[in-house]
Amino acid sequence: MISRESCTARDAADALAPLRSLFAMEPVDAEGVVYLDGNSLGVLPKATPARLRDVAEVEWGQGLIRSWNTAGWITLSERIAGKIAPLIGAAPGEVVVADSTSINLHKILHAALAARKINRQRILSERTNFPTDLYIADTLAKQNGLELVLEDTAGIAEQIDDRVAIVMLTHVNYRSGYMHDMHEITRRARDAGALIVWDLSHSAGAVPVDLQRAEADFAVGCGYKYLNGGPGAPAFAWAHPEHIAWMDDTKWRQPLSGWLGHAAPFAFSSEYRPAWGMARFVCGTPPVLSMAALECGVDTVLAAEQAGGIAAIREKSIALTQLFIDLVEQRCGGHDLSLASPRAAANRGSQVSFAHPAHGYEIMRALIARGVIGDFRAPDLLRFGFTPLYTRFVDVWDAVDRLSAVLDSGEWREARFSVRAAVT
Amino acid sequence: MISRESCTARDAADALAPLRSLFAMEPVDAEGVVYLDGNSLGVLPKATPARLRDVAEVEWGQGLIRSWNTAGWITLSERIAGKIAPLIGAAPGEVVVADSTSINLHKILHAALAARKINRQRILSERTNFPTDLYIADTLAKQNGLELVLEDTAGIAEQIDDRVAIVMLTHVNYRSGYMHDMHEITRRARDAGALIVWDLSHSAGAVPVDLQRAEADFAVGCGYKYLNGGPGAPAFAWAHPEHIAWMDDTKWRQPLSGWLGHAAPFAFSSEYRPAWGMARFVCGTPPVLSMAALECGVDTVLAAEQAGGIAAIREKSIALTQLFIDLVEQRCGGHDLSLASPRAAANRGSQVSFAHPAHGYEIMRALIARGVIGDFRAPDLLRFGFTPLYTRFVDVWDAVDRLSAVLDSGEWREARFSVRAAVT
Repeated sequence: MISRESCTARDAADALAPLRSLFAMEPVDAEGVVYLDGNSLGVLPKATPARLRDVAEVEWGQGLIRSWNTAGWITLSERIAGKIAPLIGAAPGEVVVADSTSINLHKILHAALAARKINRQRILSERTNFPTDLYIADTLAKQNGLELVLEDTAGIAEQIDDRVAIVMLTHVNYRSGYMHDMHEITRRARDAGALIVWDLSHSAGAVPVDLQRAEADFAVGCGYKYLNGGPGAPAFAWAHPEHIAWMDDTKWRQPLSGWLGHAAPFAFSSEYRPAWGMARFVCGTPPVLSMAALECGVDTVLAAEQAGGIAAIREKSIALTQLFIDLVEQRCGGHDLSLASPRAAANRGSQVSFAHPAHGYEIMRALIARGVIGDFRAPDLLRFGFTPLYTRFVDVWDAVDRLSAVLDSGEWREARFSVRAAVT
Repeated sequence: MISRESCTARDAADALAPLRSLFAMEPVDAEGVVYLDGNSLGVLPKATPARLRDVAEVEWGQGLIRSWNTAGWITLSERIAGKIAPLIGAAPGEVVVADSTSINLHKILHAALAARKINRQRILSERTNFPTDLYIADTLAKQNGLELVLEDTAGIAEQIDDRVAIVMLTHVNYRSGYMHDMHEITRRARDAGALIVWDLSHSAGAVPVDLQRAEADFAVGCGYKYLNGGPGAPAFAWAHPEHIAWMDDTKWRQPLSGWLGHAAPFAFSSEYRPAWGMARFVCGTPPVLSMAALECGVDTVLAAEQAGGIAAIREKSIALTQLFIDLVEQRCGGHDLSLASPRAAANRGSQVSFAHPAHGYEIMRALIARGVIGDFRAPDLLRFGFTPLYTRFVDVWDAVDRLSAVLDSGEWREARFSVRAAVT
């Protein structure tokens, strides 16, 4: 049996452990909370409130409109993009930060549609892909006379054939945590003459991603999960240099052609002339406060560089998720929980889901009442995210300890745990 | 001649004067700055930094993912929309807060295209409309086989005929401050069987707007000008109830069909089923920090209710802009400045522009160096915005006093004032 002491010992030996001090863990620890939902909303970096105060009181309050120049607001998007780039295997000029993941996916898919082999009528995706990806793709597919074809995870690879224009996948699945082999799937798409669009929402900052080496076509991703950018943080988008090279306004116009994506926004020309490259993916004025918080979040991931960077994050992530699986299977038997995430670490992102046939919601509510914050995804998934920058091995032990108590006591059967919250 | 004392006296008698204490004017006043650029970025409300700290440290830092429920993040958009509604003559359920003005205009124009008389091929707008409006409309026009037709301000009304599908105008022009007669233009559009889309970016919070009484069709607007929501604050959109009534997914799909605009986002269904009404105009997860700052900004405008609300704001706005025009014409003669805004108050928003044939840029830089912050719009406009909530009559006097000094001294000819900034 694994002991709590052995977990404490692993924390003491963990090279990433000092990174935890970059986060506002004091209120979390003081409340006795174990936070396993960083895959939905990353923890507050300690630097963020001071940065927000500075942006509000100094840059906005004192600098006023001048801060577009003097505080560099106008280059904020570019600066943050340059910081995200190394985390996803991209060069700085290939990434843009703007809007939301959904809106960036719309722009990126629109570009992919323009670049596709014209006689192909399918956008291929996964049945359990995050809904917004499917909605955005379905709408564009309908507008352009294409068909959105959904397959089960296991069947994706063999469905990539010469009918497929675009393969659109989320690298790490939001439900199961299943992680696609980006290089293998991308190679298959290339071989079949299809374009590939990766959603890195559950990857960026959590697992190594090398878009350039994989020779992917396009990608988008989220700022508020493992990048710790705060609720609803702006999102990012990437295109391979070969795509950036063909983009010009005679071949394709970014559909959300806003003024800040113009080649010379302050010329205030009535004619749209897009900026070169990814800068054209910017639309309107960026939400500076949320952008500033995103930068603080990205900085927490970059701060791990000395301790081994994303490779060390991945190594610890695997150790944390494996420990969680092992402990749940050792200590929570006989309660109908079944592992819904890949058992093989290579196929698993930085989360673990367990299914419960009928009472997953109530069990998660009861677990949250005991201070272990994961979340529930209908109809049956208890979902737990592990962020190596601040999740400790002892947190995993404590979480499973409380889960076993919730299950053994049957306290989840109390009526209060079946009351549905607005956000589940 | 108008004296500085008479301006001080007007401030002492001004019922809106106490509202100035809602803003962080201390650093502005301490620097000796007269800020006349609230039409580009409103001043920081005093409440905003504390609210941001609370959202970051308490709601995000302590509440973590739970704050979607416990801090009401999930209803933030709806709450702010409800506060903007009375400022534009709308009912709360008719307004949505999300994304940027550009992106909201894309969604709204897309809806208007679906609702238009199908045999009409023109989107009519103004040559000097804000560029983003023209770019967004032009892209959609091209995609749908329509033509974007641009007219001079004076020619708009007579161009509204049975070839026009959509009239798209900014209520108050960003260059000249010219304010269209919303009721008259809307009536003409209705009479001609065209739909009308109003951009209220320079109106909301500054001039009375009554969209319902005007029987307008659609509107969008900006959060960071007279609504004081902070740099890049989220924007709003409105549709007349008769349009909300016809919107269903069989007739029209919101093109940016993201998960938070779904009827049941937390069901995580793979099928898109839009929320009822304006809620479908939400796309991805909102930037909560920037949304919170927007709410503080809107609250500053609502706080004027006791002092006469938007009618009192308008009355003071006219007085401020008239005083500015009078003083410039009295004190800055002989320097080739000519009024580029309407002389008739009824046709003027809350800004005044003066043209200078060759050296507007240098004059504005020199004026800013003397602490009067307006802005320059190529090729020749010096632009000054007046926000009655915090702009005093004495500020107007001081601004013109310094402008006359800049002109009389000829200091604007110094080489340093011709160096171009990134944002002008």
